Amino acid sequence: MSLFITFEGIEGSGKSTQIALLAERLRARERTVLTTREPGGCTIADAVRTILLDARNTAMVPRAELLLYAAARAQHIEEVIRPALDSGTTVLCDRFADATLAYQGFGRGLDMKVIEELNGLATGGLAPDLTLLLDFPPEEGVQRALRRNDSRSGPNEDRFELESIAFHRRIREGYLELARREDRFRVVDARGSIDEVAGRIARAVDPVLAAGVRQ
Amino acid sequence: MSLFITFEGIEGSGKSTQIALLAERLRARERTVLTTREPGGCTIADAVRTILLDARNTAMVPRAELLLYAAARAQHIEEVIRPALDSGTTVLCDRFADATLAYQGFGRGLDMKVIEELNGLATGGLAPDLTLLLDFPPEEGVQRALRRNDSRSGPNEDRFELESIAFHRRIREGYLELARREDRFRVVDARGSIDEVAGRIARAVDPVLAAGVRQ
Repeated sequence: MSLFITFEGIEGSGKSTQIALLAERLRARERTVLTTREPGGCTIADAVRTILLDARNTAMVPRAELLLYAAARAQHIEEVIRPALDSGTTVLCDRFADATLAYQGFGRGLDMKVIEELNGLATGGLAPDLTLLLDFPPEEGVQRALRRNDSRSGPNEDRFELESIAFHRRIREGYLELARREDRFRVVDARGSIDEVAGRIARAVDPVLAAGVRQ
Repeated sequence: MSLFITFEGIEGSGKSTQIALLAERLRARERTVLTTREPGGCTIADAVRTILLDARNTAMVPRAELLLYAAARAQHIEEVIRPALDSGTTVLCDRFADATLAYQGFGRGLDMKVIEELNGLATGGLAPDLTLLLDFPPEEGVQRALRRNDSRSGPNEDRFELESIAFHRRIREGYLELARREDRFRVVDARGSIDEVAGRIARAVDPVLAAGVRQ
């Protein structure tokens, strides 16, 4: 039985660490798990990701950004996510359509109706069974993301990490608003140790696994 | 007084040659002219163009393709075309929104309503003052495009040149259908010598120049 779980949250909220831990835990229970991320997840979408995150692309206009996310998402779903779900795999995805509402809608103030239309076009109606929102203070999250980059070779802050704290605050609030609207969301406090957060995620995921949602 | 002229037509119909000649002719009449092309025309849109035309990207799904064209177009308009028109420049563009209707709509059979919506979103309502459709037999056009590529170093047929003749026939018919619908189109017979075609284009453009359309 397949299951589509998405992880959402601001920069530095610990999504990739927690996705790896949940994947390990699910595999230990004999589930086939695919971990992937947006934007990206396949060759074409990764090429789009490179354009989106390139800090030199300061000229990018909001509508182009929105359309690039939608393009990457459409390709990722058709090429990777849908085939995996169809074959019974559990898919853990680092960001999905909610991220566009949070970043481009709440963050940049683009028209929500347009975003929802584009999300609909990109996803073809595919929605996650469960969305884990790793809620984390923006000030600490951005610092964490920048420190992580500093430890790599050379400067590589991406376009989003260079945005203001106010921008990241709007995104956090936007995510919390989305979580209030949709039943598939679970808000997980992402402060504390990696193990503490993993424990909270396990408590959010286990009932959904037990219920066996996806048709 | 600015003017926005687009060139449309199948592969090998001679658009780039004719754009260069028309630009020369307009500059000789003291007009400031910008020649550009889609997909592309600026750094970000050129990066999208690379993805769109890469013959290795055989996995590209139609919806992703459509969204990538829209993204490149939105960026190109905001960064290049609108500022040029606002400063009184005459813009000659090799392909524009009509190409998406012709290639993705008539050619690939994607939903025309979706394409029109995305074109509207990408262009923000900007329409050409004049569209020159260089009408050319698909069989000869594709051969010409392939020969042109052979004369460059190494094989570089793009994803569209590798499509079937039937695909290019649907595009030609689609373009002719669009031309019947919209007054801004002029269908130009693109067979014959470069000078002959340039003469036909001059006869289509001169009345528009004299009328001074753009507000």
